[in-house]
Parts: sequence; C-alpha cells; structure tokens
Amino acid sequence: MRTLNVQLEERSYPIYIESGVLDDAERLNRHIKGKQVVIISNTTVAPLYMERLLGHLDESLKVSRVLLPDGEEHKTLATLEQIFDTALRDNHNRSTSFIALGGGVVGDMAGFAAASYQRGVNFIQIPTTLLAQVDSSVGGKTGVNHPLGKNMIGAFYQPQAVFIDPDVLDSLPAREYAAGLAEVIKYGLICDPAFYQWMHQHRDDFVARKKVVLEEAIERSCAAKARVVAEDEREGGIRAILNLGHTFGHAIEAAQGYGRWLHGEAVAAGMVLAARLSARRGCISDSEVDELVDWLEAMDLPTTPPEDMSVATWTQHMLRDKKVVDGRLRLVLLDAVGNAAIVDDLPRAELEAFLETFCPE
Amino acid sequence: MRTLNVQLEERSYPIYIESGVLDDAERLNRHIKGKQVVIISNTTVAPLYMERLLGHLDESLKVSRVLLPDGEEHKTLATLEQIFDTALRDNHNRSTSFIALGGGVVGDMAGFAAASYQRGVNFIQIPTTLLAQVDSSVGGKTGVNHPLGKNMIGAFYQPQAVFIDPDVLDSLPAREYAAGLAEVIKYGLICDPAFYQWMHQHRDDFVARKKVVLEEAIERSCAAKARVVAEDEREGGIRAILNLGHTFGHAIEAAQGYGRWLHGEAVAAGMVLAARLSARRGCISDSEVDELVDWLEAMDLPTTPPEDMSVATWTQHMLRDKKVVDGRLRLVLLDAVGNAAIVDDLPRAELEAFLETFCPE
Repeated sequence: MRTLNVQLEERSYPIYIESGVLDDAERLNRHIKGKQVVIISNTTVAPLYMERLLGHLDESLKVSRVLLPDGEEHKTLATLEQIFDTALRDNHNRSTSFIALGGGVVGDMAGFAAASYQRGVNFIQIPTTLLAQVDSSVGGKTGVNHPLGKNMIGAFYQPQAVFIDPDVLDSLPAREYAAGLAEVIKYGLICDPAFYQWMHQHRDDFVARKKVVLEEAIERSCAAKARVVAEDEREGGIRAILNLGHTFGHAIEAAQGYGRWLHGEAVAAGMVLAARLSARRGCISDSEVDELVDWLEAMDLPTTPPEDMSVATWTQHMLRDKKVVDGRLRLVLLDAVGNAAIVDDLPRAELEAFLETFCPE
Repeated sequence: MRTLNVQLEERSYPIYIESGVLDDAERLNRHIKGKQVVIISNTTVAPLYMERLLGHLDESLKVSRVLLPDGEEHKTLATLEQIFDTALRDNHNRSTSFIALGGGVVGDMAGFAAASYQRGVNFIQIPTTLLAQVDSSVGGKTGVNHPLGKNMIGAFYQPQAVFIDPDVLDSLPAREYAAGLAEVIKYGLICDPAFYQWMHQHRDDFVARKKVVLEEAIERSCAAKARVVAEDEREGGIRAILNLGHTFGHAIEAAQGYGRWLHGEAVAAGMVLAARLSARRGCISDSEVDELVDWLEAMDLPTTPPEDMSVATWTQHMLRDKKVVDGRLRLVLLDAVGNAAIVDDLPRAELEAFLETFCPE
C-alpha cells in the first residue's frame, strides 16, 4: 500500500493510494469512529460506486445517504442544508463520520458540512476524479460558492483519512481526465523537476491511464502539495505557488462564463502563459516552453487563451482575483522548470506589454 | 485595565474588562487588521451603541453594517447569509475584520460568519449582555440553530479580542440581567469556592449592578471558563462541567417551548436540581442547597421546575440531550460547593426516584 502521511501536527492524516483500495473494507472501517456514517455523493457517482461502498461498511453501523445534484452550480449553502437535514433527521450525533464519495464539488461540500455539523465531525474522503485526488485530498480547503464569488464561504478542515483508488479513473470522461493531468503537471513545474521529467518520459502511459504510473503520479502530486501546505497551512505565503496558471486561468473562466472551460483546462492555458511570461523575463528558455506546450497538446489540453479576450478584459479579471492584496497583483511565475517564484512587484506596464503579444487590438 | 489572556497557544487572545472600554478607540483600532470592517449587530442593540462605536473607528477604514433581526428564532443559516451578502457586496477581502456588537445570538452568528467568510477572517467581540460577557466571550463556540436542534451547525472559532464594558449592562432588562447572574453563580459552584463565597457576600451589590463588583465577577467568571476550556478546547471531557444545570435546564426549555423561559432561568432551576440530587447522594449538605435557593430567589430567578413536567417528560428530554453518549446520560453534579463532578454511571432508577420527589403523579 502506498501511504502518504500528511504532517499537520494533531491534524495529520494518511492518504492511501492503490488500485483496489476502495474494496479495503478493514482499513475503511478502522477510520470510522463511532457507530454512525453519512455518505455524501452525487447523482452521477453514486450509481457507479455507492452500492460497492455500502457493501464494505460494518453491519453494525447506522448509515445515511445524501445524493447531491451534480455540478458546480449546486455548490451552494442551500445544497449544503440537504446534508444537515439528513444528518439531523437521522439523529446523527457528534461521533458520526461523514464520507465524501465524488469529485471536488462533493468533497468541498461534504468537508464543509463535516467541519460545521455540531461544530465538527470525523471526515473521510474518497475522491473519484483525478483533479480531486491530487488537489482536494491535501490542504483542507472546504466550502461552497456564493452568487458573488467562488469558494467564498468555507473552512480549513482536515480529513481523518483519504482513500484514492486509481481504478475509479477508468470511468472518468476524457476531458475531465485531461483536466486533472494539467494539475499533476503543475506540481512538477512548481517544485519537483525530477517528477516533471519522469512524467514527460511517461507521456504515453498517462494517455493509456496505466495504473502503476497513475499511482506514482498521484502520490508524488499529493506529496508535493503536502510539503507546500505543511509550510503554510492557512495560506499566508508560500502556498500561493500552488496557484501557478490560476490567475490567468481564473480570468479565462470568468471571461468565458464558468463551466465553458473546465478548471483544469483554464489552468493548462494559464500555465503556458505563466511559462511564456517567465521566458520573456529570461528565467526559463523558449524551448522549455515549447516542450510544455507540445506535451499539453498531446493530452488534448488547450495551450492558448480564448482569442477574443482584450488586454482590458484580462487586467480587469486578473485584478479582481482573490490573491490580489491591497491592489497589488501577485503572480506565480517560474524561476526554472521545477521551481516557482511568487512575483508581487510586476509592473503593470510589463504585464500589459506581455498581454499585447497575443491579444486582439 | 483588567485584562484576561485566554491561553490557547497561537489562538490566545485578550479579554478587556472595564467600565468605558467601549470608548477606548486606540485599543479597538489596534485589534482591527487590514482596512475593512463589518459590524454585525441587531435591531435592538444598534440604536443604543452603533453610532458610538462607529465614532471610534479609524477614519481610513471601510465600514459595512449588518443589522440582524433580534431573537433566537432568527439564529439560522438564512440569517447568516445576510452577513455574507453584505460582506461580498461591499467587496470585503480576507483581511477584513468582523465585529460582533450584541448578545449571545449576535455573537454566535457573527463568529460563525467570521469563521466561514473566505475560510476565516479576523473576529472581535463586544458582548452587550451579561450572559454573553461571561459565556460567549470564552470558548470559541459559534453557530446557528437548525429546525431540528439548537446550535447544530457551527464552528469552534476564537476571537482576536473581546471588549467587555459593564456600563452597557445598565440598559439590560432586569430579567436578562438576572439570567446572566445565574451563569456567573454557576462558575463559582463548579470550580471556585472562594468566588462563590465572595459573590454571596456581595449579593446586594449585584442587585444594584455596582460596576466594580461586576467587573470583578465578569473577570473571575471568564477566568474560570478559560481555565476549563484551556484544558479541553474541543469538548472531549472536563469541559462538560460548564454544563452544570444545563441537562435539567434544556429539558425545561424544550418541554415548555423555547423562549418561555430564558436560558439562564432554566439553568438556575437546573442548578438547584443538580444541587438537590448531589445532596441526596451525600456530596453536599441540605443547608448548602438552601443557601443557593435563597440567593437565587433574591435575584428573582426561578428555583423550582415547572409543575406540570412528569417523570416521563423529564427523562425523554434529558436522554435526547447533545451530551448523551451512546445512550448513557452524562450529568454534572457537585462533589462540594465549588467543585463539580461528571457522573456518567447514574442508574436510571436513581434519577427517576429523584424526579419522583417533585414531579406530579
């Protein structure tokens, strides 16, 4: 069993990564405290894995199920109430365990519900998308959206354990799989050059969704994120490097309307822009940028931003980003392939000159 | 300035207790981080103190106000959304400060909003009732009610500072003042015999709301709670002693319908019952019970439960309490005046025999 221990003092927890871990009943039951369980899933994932999960739970447990509607547009306080309603209707007490079975939206909502139900109950994650496996598994960010902003209401709350079974990725649509890969590549780019080279060598294995390669990549991604988060649990400084490509990416998502581009797709194009700006500043070479672009294209990921975004549109959205502090844009760039740097003194003129190289008049 | 430092490692914070501290502008502004403030109050308290508070805030701050409807029935997720709506509409970022100006309901909701807004922002409390001053100021319990249970959704979240001005108690209705005193007396009963005797000697000063006596009592109450909470921040064990009188009290509140008895009134009657049961078990003397009853009566607090509650009604409500673990009733009794004990092996027959001594057939 590949086990990664996320070190956060008394909030430390294990991530189990292995084909078939979803069927490791003994291990799963060991992490359930008390005699009650609430499984939170959605209408897409539950038909695939709910019965299987239920079959592994200890017979003595009282189990409640909550099926949320699928989709980012349902990540709201109103949907969250469904979880509280079910848990209270079924008399779950403070020793209950909430289990998230699904992708990032399910995990974020189940996690926030677990953080808030009776001021905090046991939480177990079973992420079923590649993005959730390498992103939501580490960092403890939970929450819901507000009509005026994404992830505006939530908590930092760590799970008791995470179960990652790469087998569940077989059922993942190609576009979502590729979007998850963009985040995996990001970890190599920001802090692990050896991992980046290793992934690049295994390009074809990723296309083939080869399990042993996926296990390795998921573990190294989670380990990379865990190292960064351990240094900065509540996002004061260094954690910002995890946002490589995200400021550009968020601008794309917002300008195009949420949902048209997948988050990972916008991040892929955003990473290319961050790499190009880094090259312009002489920190990485043009051939390194070309290698990244070629690779992402082979994964069917977008590598250029939408053609209709003007410089004004870019700057408007980038300056509205949650990472803007006192009006100063903080951007994550690359010092080298495998080493991100936070730049918070980028002259606005330099950013605009860069945007002009690819924006319409 | 009386300053009590609540010791919770990196979550430690000061409680300032003094007549006039509400006008200590310099101290208040020192605890505001960033350039933005959201003041959360209600329609009863705001007319009394909002303008005064606003007058003390640094002119460079951007200030938003949220006025919640007054009353426990509005302590809901729906009301909480009003806070998020205002904060987001006015573009408050992660460096904003939320200030609670009001009683327990305002503090609980503002605290949970602060815990959840962008996953946690700076929080300052200005409690304006005696109960909130000696109870909500310490312990970090925040949250809202659910139709199926009180305080079922929330977070443990510590403030950055608490400002307690006994002068604001002058505007408190007599019944609410007395209900707050019941909690003050509770602290003496559970863990501070010298404080209990001192309060008893100053009975008349409490009736007269004498400031210097109130300052001392508030400080010793907060200190008592802080000692207990420091040992058990997330309520695993010893913290339960703070619930002296609460299991009986909650049963009274629930059986009578919430709102008919004030919480502190139900706790007063509940403490008497806990004391009587402790005397029955030989742990304290009958004369000690009589002294407590006489004192509470002098404060116009109820010392007997409602006459219409049957043994069955009592046990039904007591066994539904949040503190019931695996069906076993955990009750806080007294080993001595000034020393509470958690009893989790009370035979049901003994409880029922006790209830029969004062319940109707």
